[in-house]
Amino acid sequence: MNYKLIIAYDGAEYCGWQKQPNAMSIQQMMEETLSQFLQEPIRLTGSGRTDAGVHASGQVANFRIDHPIDTYRFIAAANGLLPKDIRVLKIEEVPEDFHSRFNAIRKEYHYHLYTGAVIPPFDRRTKWHVTKSINVHLLEKAASLFIGEHDFATFANVREGGKKENTVRTLDQLEVVINGEDITLIFAAKGFLYKMVRNITGTLIEVATGKRSIESIPGMLAAKDRKKGGRVAPPQGLFLMEVSYKGASSKEEK
Amino acid sequence: MNYKLIIAYDGAEYCGWQKQPNAMSIQQMMEETLSQFLQEPIRLTGSGRTDAGVHASGQVANFRIDHPIDTYRFIAAANGLLPKDIRVLKIEEVPEDFHSRFNAIRKEYHYHLYTGAVIPPFDRRTKWHVTKSINVHLLEKAASLFIGEHDFATFANVREGGKKENTVRTLDQLEVVINGEDITLIFAAKGFLYKMVRNITGTLIEVATGKRSIESIPGMLAAKDRKKGGRVAPPQGLFLMEVSYKGASSKEEK
Repeated sequence: MNYKLIIAYDGAEYCGWQKQPNAMSIQQMMEETLSQFLQEPIRLTGSGRTDAGVHASGQVANFRIDHPIDTYRFIAAANGLLPKDIRVLKIEEVPEDFHSRFNAIRKEYHYHLYTGAVIPPFDRRTKWHVTKSINVHLLEKAASLFIGEHDFATFANVREGGKKENTVRTLDQLEVVINGEDITLIFAAKGFLYKMVRNITGTLIEVATGKRSIESIPGMLAAKDRKKGGRVAPPQGLFLMEVSYKGASSKEEK
Repeated sequence: MNYKLIIAYDGAEYCGWQKQPNAMSIQQMMEETLSQFLQEPIRLTGSGRTDAGVHASGQVANFRIDHPIDTYRFIAAANGLLPKDIRVLKIEEVPEDFHSRFNAIRKEYHYHLYTGAVIPPFDRRTKWHVTKSINVHLLEKAASLFIGEHDFATFANVREGGKKENTVRTLDQLEVVINGEDITLIFAAKGFLYKMVRNITGTLIEVATGKRSIESIPGMLAAKDRKKGGRVAPPQGLFLMEVSYKGASSKEEK
């Protein structure tokens, strides 16, 4: 049997989704918890990694097990045993060949910014506080330059020990949503490169705060060199919101 | 000179607003910080206490000082030195006789409930997760029974070492606001008794989940006895939102 999970987490206390030596990851915490109450070793396949401190409202992972699971009891049991900063929102049986990473057709990330003078205490965990004045028109114009197919090498970090990969991606959406002193950047694509959302966000804020000219962006993209990129936005503003598959998405219906 | 502050805080790590021996309060943390950079002992007068774990978006406090303060620099300096779970939102000079507690004419509290099956990780710090099914019609009807002037003794705790006080209060507002799986209870009155909002909320949820009949409420009020009251709602759902004075309120204008 193959089961698909939709998972939400507060990433603050973890080294990211992916298992790592000497640090606790969401994946390890979940695998240990599920292995304990399903009484056999469970190995989770995530839709992709999220970095240390990055959050998720709709991460997807699947695991295989020999016997069928009572999915209703699974949710209660898993959430009863997991720490409160990780929640299983949904479980469903999927075809044997379903793969959380390879079968994903769209991912949506939200990056949350707070632009007021003093950030409310609760927002500190989930937003980047930008204290310099933001030119919204420039922000929107700069964002539009990233939409479409580009070689995003300038906006991708290479993982430690990682191989050089094809860095061409198609950004289907980069929307700027303004609500009072909150700004949310909505990114959607079939796939993203390592730190791509946070690197693009950092550069967009440099442009919107007047630290970098909007005219420099095409040259940055053309350089295909991370060293020509701007600053990286901090992790706490980033949420993996939704992963979509043919006929299904991880977004909770309200 | 007399200065009025508007303050927001995440109450999770504190024993409440009021100074206490052997535990860190918001008041003590703020007095120590302000005394340090204003270089004289500062004593804050709050609009009222909030309990351990209760939050504020618009607490008001005032303090007296001999010399005038550069209010613009004050905000930056105070927030630079305070821990990130306490923020000064605003400071303004007020008349010598202004008193945060005695002059308040209205206070507004919000109590946040989450009614979905699985509470999102971020909501765990700011909402009470009610897992039993809620009858919204009963909740609204029960809430309406508390509005107006009543002796709220059944819904007030007596503080340790506290004197017996007049327990008649006028609840001007108790509104139920529903937004998907979120329910917010909005309480407004000139003054509240100790734990009154959380005690009323606890009883409302008992009624709305079928654990207590709505017909029992008038008898509970008439009993004027805390022992006849229902359960107390947990602190993390409660926010002191706004304190109003003649011609001014602590709510941030957006």
